[in-house]
Amino acid sequence: MTRWRITVEYDGTRFVGWQCQDNGLSIQDAIETAIFRFSGERPRVFGAGRTDAGVHAIGQVAHFDLAKEVAADTVAEALNAHLRPHRIAVHQAMATAPDFDARFSATERAYRYRIINRRAPLALDRDQAWLVRVPLDDEAMVQAAARLVGQHDFSTFRASRCQANSPVRTLDRLDVSRNGDEIRIEARARSFLHHQVRNLIGTLKFVGEGKWTAEDVSRALAAKDRSAGGPTAPAHGLTLLAVHYDNEDIGSAT
Amino acid sequence: MTRWRITVEYDGTRFVGWQCQDNGLSIQDAIETAIFRFSGERPRVFGAGRTDAGVHAIGQVAHFDLAKEVAADTVAEALNAHLRPHRIAVHQAMATAPDFDARFSATERAYRYRIINRRAPLALDRDQAWLVRVPLDDEAMVQAAARLVGQHDFSTFRASRCQANSPVRTLDRLDVSRNGDEIRIEARARSFLHHQVRNLIGTLKFVGEGKWTAEDVSRALAAKDRSAGGPTAPAHGLTLLAVHYDNEDIGSAT
Repeated sequence: MTRWRITVEYDGTRFVGWQCQDNGLSIQDAIETAIFRFSGERPRVFGAGRTDAGVHAIGQVAHFDLAKEVAADTVAEALNAHLRPHRIAVHQAMATAPDFDARFSATERAYRYRIINRRAPLALDRDQAWLVRVPLDDEAMVQAAARLVGQHDFSTFRASRCQANSPVRTLDRLDVSRNGDEIRIEARARSFLHHQVRNLIGTLKFVGEGKWTAEDVSRALAAKDRSAGGPTAPAHGLTLLAVHYDNEDIGSAT
Repeated sequence: MTRWRITVEYDGTRFVGWQCQDNGLSIQDAIETAIFRFSGERPRVFGAGRTDAGVHAIGQVAHFDLAKEVAADTVAEALNAHLRPHRIAVHQAMATAPDFDARFSATERAYRYRIINRRAPLALDRDQAWLVRVPLDDEAMVQAAARLVGQHDFSTFRASRCQANSPVRTLDRLDVSRNGDEIRIEARARSFLHHQVRNLIGTLKFVGEGKWTAEDVSRALAAKDRSAGGPTAPAHGLTLLAVHYDNEDIGSAT
């Protein structure tokens, strides 16, 4: 039995999300089907981030076990061949330690959120950015973001159906930068609560349009109550950029 | 009668190209229909660059005439409202001089070509970049590109059905740069021959993979014969970035 670790890119637009659901095709389903087609085995695939419907990934990481012996460089090629109809691509596959767990071994996750701040509708980025027509003050957003970095009880920014045991998380970075009409926000933490990034973004947008001050954001955080936070930003602006592990050099890459 | 100048962004994927064709919907068709729906008039729309099927635009420029008097800020909003089902967006509309011609007044066109150079298939950029799996030497491509800049007879890089009177063009820039697995090539000229950018890219790719040297590129150019050039790169890697005019401040923007 070999444990495989794969790095996966996908366009989340036409999927119900990472995780299997009753109502449509998930990324997990598509990858599990591709594994079955090339190996004849049906292992479960575990992802580091259970992204919602519409959320994209450049560097999602997942693991699964195969009894069949396969050359390392065959796994990525075989998966990609069977994934061709879908907007899912495997960047890399490597044999890893049997106790490696894509979700629980992760030491950092990095997400990026793209806002396009202009009046004209989106043509090229319609599924990959949030169009905000009200002019946003990105400097104010930078100031407010600083209030959210660090270890906090993030109940205000946690989806009601979030299943995490604790609402306490350590947000390592929340960087806001503007380039022309695009505002990018990058969030890094060991782990996030359900909808945490999108709820933080919805709140920062309130600040950008002048509805809230940085002080309002601190108060919302201190309230530890979802109803005190801003709205949930749309899924399609969000991309899981990368997942990091302590021992990055385990295994042999294809 | 007012002459309107519009700046247009589009995802060329599902269109037959800029220009009206018998075999499907063009960008021009979609814009002309949107104009009719908001004004009741049916002017012809003239674009600065007649992009092929699959080619995208961020800053295409077009002009058309309207008898109806419309407030400047209404034109872009009305067009965008009627264009909503399509991946076409009008950034800006302005009333311009009656002799302004989007195509013939243009003094410079800028195109960008994106190559993604890696083994894994494309998921996020499948319609917006050319996947090249063979490792490309971007330094060699930079050297070869320098041989093509300047005023030349570009017959080697001209589509057989190109209707231009002369094959002589002045290529102002052909900049190649790599960022990770992405190679971007930016081409600027007053005007281009049909397929010229895509034929230049197909030739630079030959250089990148080591099939051709910069000297081979010079020889191909000197041959003035399409059969001496490299292949035509796929349309979907190409984007019309911007079109420039001498008197940039004509008209009043919305």
